[in-house]
Amino acid sequence: MKWVVLVGSVRKGSYNAALARALPGLAPEGVEVALLPSVASLPIYDGDIEAAGMPQAVTDMGGAVAAADGLVIVTPEYNYSVPGGLKNALDWLSRIKERQPLKGKPTLIMSASPGALGGARAQYHLRQILVALDAPVMNMPEVMVSQANKKIEDGVITDAGTSAFIGKQLAAFQGFVEKHL
Amino acid sequence: MKWVVLVGSVRKGSYNAALARALPGLAPEGVEVALLPSVASLPIYDGDIEAAGMPQAVTDMGGAVAAADGLVIVTPEYNYSVPGGLKNALDWLSRIKERQPLKGKPTLIMSASPGALGGARAQYHLRQILVALDAPVMNMPEVMVSQANKKIEDGVITDAGTSAFIGKQLAAFQGFVEKHL
Amino acid sequence: MKWVVLVGSVRKGSYNAALARALPGLAPEGVEVALLPSVASLPIYDGDIEAAGMPQAVTDMGGAVAAADGLVIVTPEYNYSVPGGLKNALDWLSRIKERQPLKGKPTLIMSASPGALGGARAQYHLRQILVALDAPVMNMPEVMVSQANKKIEDGVITDAGTSAFIGKQLAAFQGFVEKHL
Amino acid sequence: MKWVVLVGSVRKGSYNAALARALPGLAPEGVEVALLPSVASLPIYDGDIEAAGMPQAVTDMGGAVAAADGLVIVTPEYNYSVPGGLKNALDWLSRIKERQPLKGKPTLIMSASPGALGGARAQYHLRQILVALDAPVMNMPEVMVSQANKKIEDGVITDAGTSAFIGKQLAAFQGFVEKHL
Repeated sequence: MKWVVLVGSVRKGSYNAALARALPGLAPEGVEVALLPSVASLPIYDGDIEAAGMPQAVTDMGGAVAAADGLVIVTPEYNYSVPGGLKNALDWLSRIKERQPLKGKPTLIMSASPGALGGARAQYHLRQILVALDAPVMNMPEVMVSQANKKIEDGVITDAGTSAFIGKQLAAFQGFVEKHL
Repeated sequence: MKWVVLVGSVRKGSYNAALARALPGLAPEGVEVALLPSVASLPIYDGDIEAAGMPQAVTDMGGAVAAADGLVIVTPEYNYSVPGGLKNALDWLSRIKERQPLKGKPTLIMSASPGALGGARAQYHLRQILVALDAPVMNMPEVMVSQANKKIEDGVITDAGTSAFIGKQLAAFQGFVEKHL
Repeated sequence: MKWVVLVGSVRKGSYNAALARALPGLAPEGVEVALLPSVASLPIYDGDIEAAGMPQAVTDMGGAVAAADGLVIVTPEYNYSVPGGLKNALDWLSRIKERQPLKGKPTLIMSASPGALGGARAQYHLRQILVALDAPVMNMPEVMVSQANKKIEDGVITDAGTSAFIGKQLAAFQGFVEKHL
Repeated sequence: MKWVVLVGSVRKGSYNAALARALPGLAPEGVEVALLPSVASLPIYDGDIEAAGMPQAVTDMGGAVAAADGLVIVTPEYNYSVPGGLKNALDWLSRIKERQPLKGKPTLIMSASPGALGGARAQYHLRQILVALDAPVMNMPEVMVSQANKKIEDGVITDAGTSAFIGKQLAAFQGFVEKHL
């Protein structure tokens, strides 16, 4: 089983990028986990660019999602919602008409933030977006890492409880993906 | 009184850009309406770029919003939410700490789409985002132009009812802005 | 296969009740469809009532949901969200700890309203509520019957397109339920 | 200045009822704060009941809201949204057509829950509902009392930081109400 990971943040020291890098080590045995390119590798969506020819970076990202058995989105919350860059990537992916990569793709959401809510508000907006894309999203357990600055240091998860809980979520996701294969 | 307009779509033939261009002619007398630069003029938000120095395009857009009495956001709905490019612009603007341009800025939302809902789902996500930015957003009347392809042709509003209703909303917004001056 | 239907409206002439009554005739062959009691048969949720003993009407409704293979919620939108009475029923059902009736229960949403949006705003709030209850909700196709007063007359669906589209949704739901059995 | 308070929970030991009872002591000098009747004093909304004559309890609650300068809603989160009972009360109030009590009424939201999010998800659904009712809702500061069981004991706020923060929010609300008078 193969999963790909889309990260909602771009900066090098991102807590969410740190989570994403930890996933291969926390995923169940037999699951291969690969990171997708940065959401900053895509231009701001523009229908005129699309009409002139889908950018190669979009086609490549879409192909990687389509080839995977599951998609994991790891994202911060910006201004009570999904980061613009992440939404922009999903907007581009939604324009791939042939073999739509999100359609029916089992999807998992996790978030981290230094605040108290751990990115919760971004997660529910993201769930609504994924209805549009017709992706089944796992309900439970939900992972919202609050006070991420105390649990992730120098790009590594230092809080054992956080690692354990993510491991539990990934194990549940394995079952979710199997049900949708 | 001066308003600035932020458009959520980038393509040249955009229905929402057409709406935006019509606003100066539909606004109450004595209101000056100016369009902000395209949301595609900003890079995907990246904390490392910000740390290296706020991009000039962000500072300029923020300054224009700060100098205005009101902000009008005219946007399509992409995948049941706000276009990534528009959200990205708001994410950048939210990072201006001194004289935060959105804080307390009276804001109006309108949307257009070829579909039946006229962009409604984008509007409610946008409202939640604007809570984070502490911008007061006018409640009523709401403008959601459905079946925009039949009401906007060759970049011009051809449906008289649509123009009249937008005029009514703009008149109400004038009062809303006055209350918040 | 057996489905139960929860209706969000109480009044006798309800458009949504009319939809609900039509479901047995529109469902795929071999599917039995039964209506649950009115949401008005439950008191306003009160933790003190619960502590004194779960009301029989709650236990009965929960048992009926638990015994079914799928749940269909047919609801109007009140004030841009789910009717209070429907939410109250779900709040009560969520308190059944043993054999939680909603957990893992395949669920379908449809809505009708005389307005232009057909209840869309209620549907997305309802989806978020059903995440809490850990019910898998089908994504597509979505049924939002707008201008219901022109499509449902004297308690009967008179618009053939509406009936056909609901039939299509129910056929898809049959497959969705099978996947989750 | 007079404010009325609507509580989203019914049980006697409710954390949110405890918050509500503390408001008169935390409000700025010169503000009178009165509690509205319980949301359990209203029947489940039914258009047939309304057609037969608006229940007296609805008319009374509506009159009290209409007579106040501001409305404060203090509520728990049930199943990631607004409690059904609270939504039901708002649904009834929305049906008062003459001198609509919520229209233009300055409104404040606060929430408490034993969980980590403090009722955040209920607040954003409530904000969307209040757009429908055309009530201006204060943006900032937001009060979400998490781990309420540690901050409210025997029906009294025992955490000084919580009291101080609510006092700050109420002072801001006084200014918000004045702007809308």
